[in-house]
Amino acid sequence: MSGREFFATRTVAEALAGFRPARRTVLEDVALDGALHRVPATDVAAAAALPGFARSTVDGYAVRAADTYGASEGLPSYLDLLGAVRMGTAPAVAVRPGGCVAMPTGGVLPEGADAVVMVEHTAETMPGTIEVTRPVAPLDGLVRADEDVAAGAPLVPGGRPLRAPDLGLLAAAGVTTVRVHARPRVVIVSTGDEVVPPSTAQLCPGQVRDATASALAGLVRDAGGEPVLAGIVPDDAGALEATLRDALRDADLVVVSAGSSVGARDETAGAVAALGDIWCHGLALKPGKPTLLAECGSDSGNVPLIGLPGNPLSALVVFRLVGVPLVWRLAGCPVPPPEPSTSARLARDLPSAAGRFDVVQVTVRDGTATPIFGPSALLSVLTRADGCLVVPEPATGLAAGSEVQVTLYR
Amino acid sequence: MSGREFFATRTVAEALAGFRPARRTVLEDVALDGALHRVPATDVAAAAALPGFARSTVDGYAVRAADTYGASEGLPSYLDLLGAVRMGTAPAVAVRPGGCVAMPTGGVLPEGADAVVMVEHTAETMPGTIEVTRPVAPLDGLVRADEDVAAGAPLVPGGRPLRAPDLGLLAAAGVTTVRVHARPRVVIVSTGDEVVPPSTAQLCPGQVRDATASALAGLVRDAGGEPVLAGIVPDDAGALEATLRDALRDADLVVVSAGSSVGARDETAGAVAALGDIWCHGLALKPGKPTLLAECGSDSGNVPLIGLPGNPLSALVVFRLVGVPLVWRLAGCPVPPPEPSTSARLARDLPSAAGRFDVVQVTVRDGTATPIFGPSALLSVLTRADGCLVVPEPATGLAAGSEVQVTLYR
Repeated sequence: MSGREFFATRTVAEALAGFRPARRTVLEDVALDGALHRVPATDVAAAAALPGFARSTVDGYAVRAADTYGASEGLPSYLDLLGAVRMGTAPAVAVRPGGCVAMPTGGVLPEGADAVVMVEHTAETMPGTIEVTRPVAPLDGLVRADEDVAAGAPLVPGGRPLRAPDLGLLAAAGVTTVRVHARPRVVIVSTGDEVVPPSTAQLCPGQVRDATASALAGLVRDAGGEPVLAGIVPDDAGALEATLRDALRDADLVVVSAGSSVGARDETAGAVAALGDIWCHGLALKPGKPTLLAECGSDSGNVPLIGLPGNPLSALVVFRLVGVPLVWRLAGCPVPPPEPSTSARLARDLPSAAGRFDVVQVTVRDGTATPIFGPSALLSVLTRADGCLVVPEPATGLAAGSEVQVTLYR
Repeated sequence: MSGREFFATRTVAEALAGFRPARRTVLEDVALDGALHRVPATDVAAAAALPGFARSTVDGYAVRAADTYGASEGLPSYLDLLGAVRMGTAPAVAVRPGGCVAMPTGGVLPEGADAVVMVEHTAETMPGTIEVTRPVAPLDGLVRADEDVAAGAPLVPGGRPLRAPDLGLLAAAGVTTVRVHARPRVVIVSTGDEVVPPSTAQLCPGQVRDATASALAGLVRDAGGEPVLAGIVPDDAGALEATLRDALRDADLVVVSAGSSVGARDETAGAVAALGDIWCHGLALKPGKPTLLAECGSDSGNVPLIGLPGNPLSALVVFRLVGVPLVWRLAGCPVPPPEPSTSARLARDLPSAAGRFDVVQVTVRDGTATPIFGPSALLSVLTRADGCLVVPEPATGLAAGSEVQVTLYR
């Protein structure tokens, strides 16, 4: 493959709508207790109806509703107490006209009954006789055998990450393993002659420890992916190309965290162009302009690749915006789960260029969002920020006092 | 200990403000790549300044700013090119008056220089001579050696779960293990004669599989805790007390997922009263009234205990409201991270009783929140819901069309 549209610059909207690699991870069976936030490929259907029997939702008496019609405090219905249902067992007795059976919440409705009267509306005035002081309609005080889920109906939808309550419904239906998309393997390649591993105790002058890879790994985990740190490659086109070729072999997504020098940036584009098609090189985004999006060939089919800007703040802004939805998509989830957000008043004017998508880091206190400025080379900006806001492409800025929507970090 | 205020009913606000067990989990050291969302007990301080050297933020030339004062397109400053800085190495040459040194972004500022001119504002008109067409001020085009973080200053704050970018800043500072609170061990005890394990293939009449424990385990994981499923205890006070006594031994929090019968509810309260102090029994909450909050003694100090309502929907509402903040608090995080939310218009009137905190499950489509009604015994309500909204204690309901804040599930 060769590079097409080598220097195409795109808007963020174009990138999100247009860069949609077809790759999806394989399916695997996981145990229910490891299935949280995993994505089933298809609806998971109920093998049988739930709860599976007509079930009382109150403590009281199973009755024929017709036997209670017209009952009141002044003129109760009197019913013969025929027995009691025990929790977790089949009723030993049926309800015949004029009779009733004592029921615990969650008990099985006996034959013949069609409603349950709450104990609060009854009294046992004589042993063996129950006074009912309020009428019930058929189906009152119970759930039908298939009211929660009908046999064959979906328990949980495909394409949506499983949430905690979903695990409950699956457990109720006896589903103890779930077929889900494998976690996308996101191979992170760091480059830069100046970059050394975080474990480097003593830095030589000019060296910096690799911050971006660890932060990216965290974002990948939050998006349900499995980060694989491929290490640090010097600013050398041959070495980078060889590392990328290896990375593509077992990756669902390759992320290149570029060195910050202009040479490093050029080398990433060159190496990627030799391995696949560059979809865009440059996003109308601040910070984050020098972003590269590509699809590369590999033994396992095409693999998307994101080349990130050199500075860590820009790299993380771009990865949140473009990479996180892509990781979810690779796992079969077309719409990522919602992120925390809050609305706030902007503390000061925010200038912006029309046609550019600006992402601004902010602190939020008492409903006021205050932009954090300073060189985008500073990492501490991201740890001080409570979240970020976007000045969208058409706007030329936002005035102090504007109401803004802040995506909150968690 | 004996039960005090055995039947005290509380508002949700009272429970959140007043039930604040002092227990915290022990501290442990974890590797950086396993530290995401873990909670450092105290600020993690930088051993040395970051970036550690005055660092260029642009491609260009290191200069003495004074040498550029007054420079313009019409009247450039001419500077002698003395050499070049290579990435990741100490500069081999200093900048003397009238001189400059070529700089990559991220390079070390040479001795004698106090600013970096962007390459865009320069030209090499003659070999060895750089023309500067715009003046720079001292510190332009660079970050100072301690501008990101000063030596001894906090990299990340204690008490706040670590976020992905935090891991980046810690990596940059060479911090590869972090001292954090251990994950709270949340022991989940299921009770009920009718309750059987999710793996039960064929149910006998009246049996239900344990849905609540699996769903609770998911909520515990989302809150950074470690769920431990202690199994299912029949409705027998002695058996429950023995199981709770065991559970308390190695738990930071015990959760009793009660059977739904009135007998089961009474037995939970009885067993807990024998083991500790009941703080409240009954919350002014719908659904979720029959909630029990207690502190019990154990070898490892007092352990909080939550007795949940019998029906799974109510149990999960209560655990989200009361349990999730408690799990975070046990791990040293006083303010849980934000949850996703959205504002929406209410599709229909919602009645409520004044003085009661109502939690209503809703779907959200195109900015409209539609309440899901039906028996609270239905599990499927929670998997159909996109989130929930609260009708607070003072309100007697919400009118159709009201703007509401919906907490979104993820």
